Amino acid sequence: MAGNTFGRLLRLTSFGESHGPGVGGVLDGCPPGLELCEADLQEELDLRKPGQGPTATKRREADRVRLLSGVFEGRATGTPIAFYVVNEDQRSGDYGDLAELFRPGHADWTYYKKFCEIRDHRGGGRASGRETLARVAAGAIAKKILSRHGVAVHAACLELGGVAAPADAVGPENLAQAFRRPYFAPSEAMVALWNKRVEEARAAHDTLGGIVLVVAQNVPVGLGEPVFDKLEAVLAHAVMSVGAVKGVEVGEGFAAARLTGSQNNDELLPGGTFASNHAGGILGGISSGQDIVLRAAVKPIASIPKKQRTVDTMGRPREIIVGGRHDLSAIPRVIPVLSAMTALVLADAMLLQCRMDAAS
Amino acid sequence: MAGNTFGRLLRLTSFGESHGPGVGGVLDGCPPGLELCEADLQEELDLRKPGQGPTATKRREADRVRLLSGVFEGRATGTPIAFYVVNEDQRSGDYGDLAELFRPGHADWTYYKKFCEIRDHRGGGRASGRETLARVAAGAIAKKILSRHGVAVHAACLELGGVAAPADAVGPENLAQAFRRPYFAPSEAMVALWNKRVEEARAAHDTLGGIVLVVAQNVPVGLGEPVFDKLEAVLAHAVMSVGAVKGVEVGEGFAAARLTGSQNNDELLPGGTFASNHAGGILGGISSGQDIVLRAAVKPIASIPKKQRTVDTMGRPREIIVGGRHDLSAIPRVIPVLSAMTALVLADAMLLQCRMDAAS
Amino acid sequence: MAGNTFGRLLRLTSFGESHGPGVGGVLDGCPPGLELCEADLQEELDLRKPGQGPTATKRREADRVRLLSGVFEGRATGTPIAFYVVNEDQRSGDYGDLAELFRPGHADWTYYKKFCEIRDHRGGGRASGRETLARVAAGAIAKKILSRHGVAVHAACLELGGVAAPADAVGPENLAQAFRRPYFAPSEAMVALWNKRVEEARAAHDTLGGIVLVVAQNVPVGLGEPVFDKLEAVLAHAVMSVGAVKGVEVGEGFAAARLTGSQNNDELLPGGTFASNHAGGILGGISSGQDIVLRAAVKPIASIPKKQRTVDTMGRPREIIVGGRHDLSAIPRVIPVLSAMTALVLADAMLLQCRMDAAS
Amino acid sequence: MAGNTFGRLLRLTSFGESHGPGVGGVLDGCPPGLELCEADLQEELDLRKPGQGPTATKRREADRVRLLSGVFEGRATGTPIAFYVVNEDQRSGDYGDLAELFRPGHADWTYYKKFCEIRDHRGGGRASGRETLARVAAGAIAKKILSRHGVAVHAACLELGGVAAPADAVGPENLAQAFRRPYFAPSEAMVALWNKRVEEARAAHDTLGGIVLVVAQNVPVGLGEPVFDKLEAVLAHAVMSVGAVKGVEVGEGFAAARLTGSQNNDELLPGGTFASNHAGGILGGISSGQDIVLRAAVKPIASIPKKQRTVDTMGRPREIIVGGRHDLSAIPRVIPVLSAMTALVLADAMLLQCRMDAAS
Repeated sequence: MAGNTFGRLLRLTSFGESHGPGVGGVLDGCPPGLELCEADLQEELDLRKPGQGPTATKRREADRVRLLSGVFEGRATGTPIAFYVVNEDQRSGDYGDLAELFRPGHADWTYYKKFCEIRDHRGGGRASGRETLARVAAGAIAKKILSRHGVAVHAACLELGGVAAPADAVGPENLAQAFRRPYFAPSEAMVALWNKRVEEARAAHDTLGGIVLVVAQNVPVGLGEPVFDKLEAVLAHAVMSVGAVKGVEVGEGFAAARLTGSQNNDELLPGGTFASNHAGGILGGISSGQDIVLRAAVKPIASIPKKQRTVDTMGRPREIIVGGRHDLSAIPRVIPVLSAMTALVLADAMLLQCRMDAAS
Repeated sequence: MAGNTFGRLLRLTSFGESHGPGVGGVLDGCPPGLELCEADLQEELDLRKPGQGPTATKRREADRVRLLSGVFEGRATGTPIAFYVVNEDQRSGDYGDLAELFRPGHADWTYYKKFCEIRDHRGGGRASGRETLARVAAGAIAKKILSRHGVAVHAACLELGGVAAPADAVGPENLAQAFRRPYFAPSEAMVALWNKRVEEARAAHDTLGGIVLVVAQNVPVGLGEPVFDKLEAVLAHAVMSVGAVKGVEVGEGFAAARLTGSQNNDELLPGGTFASNHAGGILGGISSGQDIVLRAAVKPIASIPKKQRTVDTMGRPREIIVGGRHDLSAIPRVIPVLSAMTALVLADAMLLQCRMDAAS
Repeated sequence: MAGNTFGRLLRLTSFGESHGPGVGGVLDGCPPGLELCEADLQEELDLRKPGQGPTATKRREADRVRLLSGVFEGRATGTPIAFYVVNEDQRSGDYGDLAELFRPGHADWTYYKKFCEIRDHRGGGRASGRETLARVAAGAIAKKILSRHGVAVHAACLELGGVAAPADAVGPENLAQAFRRPYFAPSEAMVALWNKRVEEARAAHDTLGGIVLVVAQNVPVGLGEPVFDKLEAVLAHAVMSVGAVKGVEVGEGFAAARLTGSQNNDELLPGGTFASNHAGGILGGISSGQDIVLRAAVKPIASIPKKQRTVDTMGRPREIIVGGRHDLSAIPRVIPVLSAMTALVLADAMLLQCRMDAAS
Repeated sequence: MAGNTFGRLLRLTSFGESHGPGVGGVLDGCPPGLELCEADLQEELDLRKPGQGPTATKRREADRVRLLSGVFEGRATGTPIAFYVVNEDQRSGDYGDLAELFRPGHADWTYYKKFCEIRDHRGGGRASGRETLARVAAGAIAKKILSRHGVAVHAACLELGGVAAPADAVGPENLAQAFRRPYFAPSEAMVALWNKRVEEARAAHDTLGGIVLVVAQNVPVGLGEPVFDKLEAVLAHAVMSVGAVKGVEVGEGFAAARLTGSQNNDELLPGGTFASNHAGGILGGISSGQDIVLRAAVKPIASIPKKQRTVDTMGRPREIIVGGRHDLSAIPRVIPVLSAMTALVLADAMLLQCRMDAAS
């Protein structure tokens, strides 16, 4: 109920604050027998590590994950898999004056009001992007479950600071290789353009948002539930639960609002195929076997080194310049998180559907 | 788990098929003492009734709702409130050949595969828009809970078939009165433009989509939960669970991806106010006390009276022209549903937050 | 959260008051393809009908159940199965003075305090035994799911008003036939003894309790979850949720407290068998493949035609003689309910385990 | 779903195996502002520590608990409270041959079958009593929540190895001080008798069970939910989920089956009091304001140093003498666990009820 657990049969409970002892999670419901080790989680975590690339903060942590339970002799036992990452580089001093001031665009003020004026203000506390470590670690396990069924989840940046990649830059191979490029860019050409855009923003003491594409390939038909837990509803929940995301769409998404029925329908062809994929792989809330295609809108990072108006805990007007070590765009670090959340939803939906097939 | 229940403390379980005996729902968790009668539900249901306005199907049903439990002497008792609407006008004959053919853009094929090749094919069965009756009836109760706290939920059409209302047409009063106009239009001028667009589509034997705005006013600070159940995540879940919706955004939404941090941040002012509302009333997943603003993309209706390619249950290629009595756009009927889902989420979040305030 | 839903993958939501329009339920998660019709539910409901046998109330209702959704052409579709029973014989007048008086041993006072002094006082309202109709109807569906896997659930009375059946009266055949005898007695000899005990109690204007045995046969190994959702924990939850039940035990139960380890352990033999079944078919919370054996203690019915002290809604001391039409013992009517709850737990556990087997 | 999470608004997720890196838990939903430190948890954990008293194993661990999140400057923040205890004394060698043999009376065989023949066999792995550390630590937090409302939870041993304490030994003060005595005995006299009984059992190379009493005082009226989540049902779930428990009863419990209605009913007196407490403080599933009284039956420990028949993983008949370091009775260590589970249920129920009061 308190918002720190996600999933149904595959269920992640997350804990930890930015400047507390550490962050971690418990993933319950992993099928027994799955081959798993710390390196599987570390590999995904390394993709979201701070201190990488042109948009990065200077905060550097090893972010070494440790498995605390649920794995025996290299395989999941079916019991809860707990994992933990120690917070190593916590310069709380950087955040000293934030005990009294609310940063615009952050959760500071709303947490303060929600939690009866008690909060761990250091670095955003629980609202810090550091909680996404648990999502990515759990997502790594979800991806291993999915890969046993041949399902792959890819993600890339489509647009940064208003500079969009051309549609033809986002083909299947470009997508699969995006995680190797800065910004998870679909091509080297985009890296150059986005470097330029980032330099402009840095010079202007400002930050940038963007749009992320997530594609899941080889998804079996039948995932998702009718009515309230349609696959796209649960995906939207998952994706919008990531800090900076303010919009999500599936298939044609907002563009579908401008198409006619005859343009937007995907005709069925023999062999379980379709003439097009405007639906983004989901029909009536259930996966159709086509690629699942979703996009998320990521807002610009709220921490800007510019003077802004705000108030303090006494309600008095103040001004603030947010110091600390901050990224210029959330895009590079949010992409592995969106990929992880998508994997968690699909693995969970797959476990639910396996059960129905087996019971019927 | 099977997708027919929504909510945490205020929890709706929905049942019923398009051409079965009826549709209904059970709303559990309503606070005792709420004044409630069948007319409260009927009033909202009448807003989504078929057979109204220029985009409507010819199917006509009274859709008379009946309360089966949970209300005594005009007040909710705190026990489950069940309600039920009989299906009166079920010309199943219209759908006879759909037992074997899958309609493009519908859930026919995915349900068939998901549910082990068993399905009630008549009129979409469980996947029919008729299930939204339960959402609207429950939403009416949610709105009464909210109104005790002064919260109001309004909805309007922003765009239909690519014809958008100008930004200045969507002020507070226009919004509050939209439910009285065809299409829930923000102004009479838009009604005329959209009538024209609808006539074009009808002549072209095609259907239209659109964009819907939902605004919740006077929402208290502190609703929503951290991390996975951010208020916007649960709203996105609720909104994307409605049949034809393919995208959702909060505040600036996708436009935020193109703003810089200094443009997108909402500065805090004394008195719990803000200099702007780019965030759409939600910061860090928690309501800020500003208006909650969300938009949903609605795809064009999939039932078109045009020849389309499809397959039959044997996998053979076929052609289909979808007959029956269908709407030309989902917009007018989906708007009360989106409004209801928003109300359910907010009332549920409010009940959760009441508890925290009381317990602390 | 509000206590009207039970189960995980197979989930029953119940609604209805004793003297409202009717009572019913929604069972979500039934595997598609299960053969099902109203007669399947009616057959089980008839076993708990009032007006039967020597302990019965004079209230007579047909209790005709109607399926409202989820079944098409004689088979479950996998969507929610709603069922409903109209309240036909509601002499609310019998309960007129109960609006102000709290009956000892009933939920009257606690409901009044819990629900902010609002309650449907007629016949116990939501706290009436009539809510068990929904349990029995849903249990009938659960039993059909179980029977596809060869699992059978039997129940019998072991003791009534302090008169216990001898241990040798409760063999496998006696158990399977108990539902055909008054009191679900394990033998005809017990019927005679219990008739005599009932007559004594009736003459004394008093009521009786008893002990019920439930046995599930042919349960597969592996049902139940570790730690918090051990099979016996979920069974205890289910059984103790039935109105008059005040105790539950599995296998040796309380007697195990007096055995030594060497007496209580069940040695393992080849072929998945055991030398004894002191554990009642559950080891470490997981079914072992042996018969699951549980017993429930049922308190005497609280409605007695004797003067008792109580208070009214103003807190003033009063006296009450509970009139109305009441049973002399809950035993005969509670037995089908306990059998139904056991079936719901086992079917749910089986669906959960199917999933794991399929996913691994 | 996988059984490692318990609770609704106050929700414990537990993880860890007996011989893995450690055991721990995450408690979500603690009200913000609660004063809390590691010593609060440690104090309760010390009560269940091994190596204490006459029935104890020789395994000695500091069992030092560490808070990983959710507490800031000595107070709960309302975010998840994670805690962790390192496994220090893990002589896995003691359990080497258990990789192939199933111990009678343990979860070995059922886990092996449930989890696809994969399991951490060392010391019972997840099924070890060591998982109860998480329950006790979380229970310590629940008790702090309860104590703010004046609620106290006490527990004592009523019977060990068939030797029962006399009814008059269990008065309010004896109960409150039981935790200071060996066996949580209600009096010094019982300590002597139980020491004698334990010596007999030790000499006979056997183990003992017993009966535990839990009493909650000063519980407010109105806790618990109707129908499926009656307070006694949730308590039964909680109590039966503890490893060695095979029976649970509330108030008169099984004895109620032999009382008549006039003997068992508790008459209401002015001032919210009752003439007796046969019901054990729960009427119609809702707390009545009287003491909540429950008893649990604890089976004798299954690990006995006697030759027993069993099978190996190949299904072949074998003999086993369970070595390792084991307790002679679970009673002393299970009592703090039962007390903790009761506290978790009551605190959760109280948070749920706070919400209703606030919302109405």
